[in-house]
Amino acid sequence: MSNFHFDLQHRDAATGARRGVFVTPHGPVQTPGFMPVGTQGTVKGVTIDQVAATGAHMILGNTYHLALRPGHETVRRLGGLHAMCGWEGPILTDSGGFQVFSLGEINKVTEHAATFRSHIDGRIVELTPERSIEIQEALGSDVAMVLDHVIALPADTGAVTDAMERSIRWAKRCLEYANSDLQAKFAIVQGGLDETLRAQCARELTSMDFDGYAVGGLSVGEESSEMYRVTAATTEHLPADHPRYLMGVGRPIDLLENVARGIDLFDCVMPTRNGRNSIAFTDAGPVKLRNAVHREDRRPVEQGCPCIACRHSRGYIRHLFNAGEMLGPILLSIHNLTYYQRLMSETRSAIEADRFEEFRREKIAGWNSATTPSEATGSGAQ
Amino acid sequence: MSNFHFDLQHRDAATGARRGVFVTPHGPVQTPGFMPVGTQGTVKGVTIDQVAATGAHMILGNTYHLALRPGHETVRRLGGLHAMCGWEGPILTDSGGFQVFSLGEINKVTEHAATFRSHIDGRIVELTPERSIEIQEALGSDVAMVLDHVIALPADTGAVTDAMERSIRWAKRCLEYANSDLQAKFAIVQGGLDETLRAQCARELTSMDFDGYAVGGLSVGEESSEMYRVTAATTEHLPADHPRYLMGVGRPIDLLENVARGIDLFDCVMPTRNGRNSIAFTDAGPVKLRNAVHREDRRPVEQGCPCIACRHSRGYIRHLFNAGEMLGPILLSIHNLTYYQRLMSETRSAIEADRFEEFRREKIAGWNSATTPSEATGSGAQ
Ligand SMILES: [Zn+2]
Ligand SMILES: [Zn+2]
Repeated sequence: MSNFHFDLQHRDAATGARRGVFVTPHGPVQTPGFMPVGTQGTVKGVTIDQVAATGAHMILGNTYHLALRPGHETVRRLGGLHAMCGWEGPILTDSGGFQVFSLGEINKVTEHAATFRSHIDGRIVELTPERSIEIQEALGSDVAMVLDHVIALPADTGAVTDAMERSIRWAKRCLEYANSDLQAKFAIVQGGLDETLRAQCARELTSMDFDGYAVGGLSVGEESSEMYRVTAATTEHLPADHPRYLMGVGRPIDLLENVARGIDLFDCVMPTRNGRNSIAFTDAGPVKLRNAVHREDRRPVEQGCPCIACRHSRGYIRHLFNAGEMLGPILLSIHNLTYYQRLMSETRSAIEADRFEEFRREKIAGWNSATTPSEATGSGAQ
Repeated sequence: MSNFHFDLQHRDAATGARRGVFVTPHGPVQTPGFMPVGTQGTVKGVTIDQVAATGAHMILGNTYHLALRPGHETVRRLGGLHAMCGWEGPILTDSGGFQVFSLGEINKVTEHAATFRSHIDGRIVELTPERSIEIQEALGSDVAMVLDHVIALPADTGAVTDAMERSIRWAKRCLEYANSDLQAKFAIVQGGLDETLRAQCARELTSMDFDGYAVGGLSVGEESSEMYRVTAATTEHLPADHPRYLMGVGRPIDLLENVARGIDLFDCVMPTRNGRNSIAFTDAGPVKLRNAVHREDRRPVEQGCPCIACRHSRGYIRHLFNAGEMLGPILLSIHNLTYYQRLMSETRSAIEADRFEEFRREKIAGWNSATTPSEATGSGAQ
C-alpha cells in the first residue's frame, strides 16, 4: 500500500534490535518507538502540546472506549480523532478485542461476533470484525488493528488454539472489509505461550497482505522471561520489512528486552498510571515522590531531564501529592512520558552505533542500583 | 520604600477607573489586573508556564494553607515560594485571616492572637499579626497582607466596630514587626457594610506607611449593589498614588464595576473553580460545557480566544467532562484564566482611550445576551 511503508535502516550487530522508520500519511514514526495511550481521546492529564513536547511520534486511541463514549459517529462529526484531539501526527487505534474481554461485563463469542455488556450504560453491544474496522474508519486513525479473540491465560491448549484460529479468520474478514487506503491494517499474532501455535499463527497471517504485525496476548500476568521467550519465538516468523508492535508492554526493562528480540513499537499506560500514583521512572529506577523522605529535597526528579516537572524540586512535587493537587499527577505523567521517549531515543542511537547490547546492560544496571525494590505497578491493560 | 512604587498613568474621564503600573522586585504588574489564586502553591490544574501564557502578571498564595502544608519553613528550605512554584513574576500572599475564620474548626480571638484548630490535622495553631508576617517573610512573597480580624456578616455594629478597630491595631503591629525591604506591606480596610466605619478605618490605615491598601470583608454573601457601594465609599478615602486591591472578587461584572470605583487589583478562585465544574466564561456569558447540547458542536468555547482549550471543539470538551477525564478541568481552567486576563487587558486599553464607560456597557450587554441565566458559581472564598 503506497501510503505506508517501513524502512528498515539498520540491524544491531549483536541482538535482534532494529532501527527503522514507519512512514504514514500523518508523518514518520521513528522505531523503536513508544506510543502514549489516549484511551478516551486524551492522554490522561496531559494537553496535546505537552504530549508532543515529550517527543512522542504516534499515539494510541481505544476503539472500545471511543465507540461507547462519545461514540465513533460523534468523533467523525467532530472531524475525526486527529481533529478532535488536536494531534497532527499518526494515530493507531486498537480493535476493541482486549477491552471487550477485560471490561465487558458479560461476553459471548461466536464465529460471527463478540457480544458484551457495556461497562458504561449496561447496553448489549455486538462487535464483529467488520464493525471494528467500520468504527476505526470513522475514527480516522492511521493504523487499524484487526479484531482478535483474546482469552485469559493460563488456558488449555485446545482453547488457546481455538481462539488463535478464530483470530486468523477474523483478521481475514477485517482485511476484506477494510476500505480505506489512508488506514494501514495490522494483524495480531495470538497463540498464548505456545511457540508452535505462535509460529503457525504468524505464518498464516503473513501470508495475507497486512501493513504490520502485532504480538498480542502478552503482559497478562505471565513471567517476564515467558514474555521474552514468546516474543522471540514470534518475531522470528515475521517479515523483516514490516513493523512489529508488542501490545500493552510495558516496564522500561520490558521495552529493552523486547527491542532486543526484534520489536519496533510499544504502547502502555504505565507512564501515566504510575505518574498519577506519584511514581517517577528514572535511570536509577522508580522513585515514589509521595514518600516523606522527599519533603525538603531540592533536587529535581531526574537531573538533566528536560521536562517541565524537572524544573521543580522533588519537595514541591511531594507537597503537590500530599495536598491532593492535580498538578502532581500532571507533572509526573509528563516526566514519565518524557522518560519513555528518551529511553526510545537513546535506544535508536545505540542501535545505529551497534552498541545496543552495552546500552541495555548499562540501563539495567542503573535501574537495579536503587536501594529499594521497584515500586512501579500496573503493566498491561488499558 | 524604594523597591516598590505605583505609577498612576491615567484616570478615566468618566468613571473612577485608573490605569497604572505596580512595580515590584519581580517585575511590573499592569493595573487594573487580576491575580490567579495558587492556594497551596499551585494554581489548581495548571502548570506554571500555562499560568504565564494566560497573561497573568502576579499570582496569589495562601499563607494559611502553606503554613499548615508543607509548612513555611519547608517552603523556605525549598528556596521560597517563587523557586518552589517556578514563578518568576511577583507573588502576593494573604495573611491567613480570612481562612482562619472560614476554615479553622474552632477559633478564638483575643487582642494577642487568633487561635484555631487546623482543618488538616486538628492541631491547635495560634496566629498573631507578627507570626503572619514571619510566615510571609519565610514564603518570600513580594507583597504581604496584614492580619485582619474577619467576622461573618451580617453582624451588629458593635461587633463590626470591634473587629475593625482590632484590625487597625493588628495592621500597626504587622508594620512594626516587618523586617524586609523586598516585601511590600498592604493594609486591609474593614468595617462591614457601614460607610462611616469604612471611612474611619481607611483614614487610620492611610496615616501609616503602607505600600498599598486592600478592601476586605466583601464578597461574603452581600448583594452586588452593596459591594459596589462599599467599595466606592472606601476608595474615596484611599490615596491615589497607592495600589488598591479588592480581595476575593469576583465575577467578570464585579471586576468592571469595581474598576469603575477605583480598584486596581483583584483575585478570585472563580475562573479555576468554575472551569473544574465545566463552566466557561465567554463574552456571551457563562457556558456549561457538560450539557448535552454541546455534544457535536465543532465551534470552540469562544471564537478568537488564543488559549489552548479553544483549539478544540466544544464537543470534545463536553466529551472530556462526560468521561471524567482530567483534561476537561485543565482546559477550562486555562480558558477561564485567559478570559479574565483578556478582560483586564481590554479594560486597561479602554481606560487609556477614555472609553471605559462604553466598554463596560458593551461587555455587560454581551454577558446578558445569553438565553439562559448565569450558571457560574462560587465567588468569594479561597
Ligand atoms: Zn523530568
Ligand atoms: Zn479559550
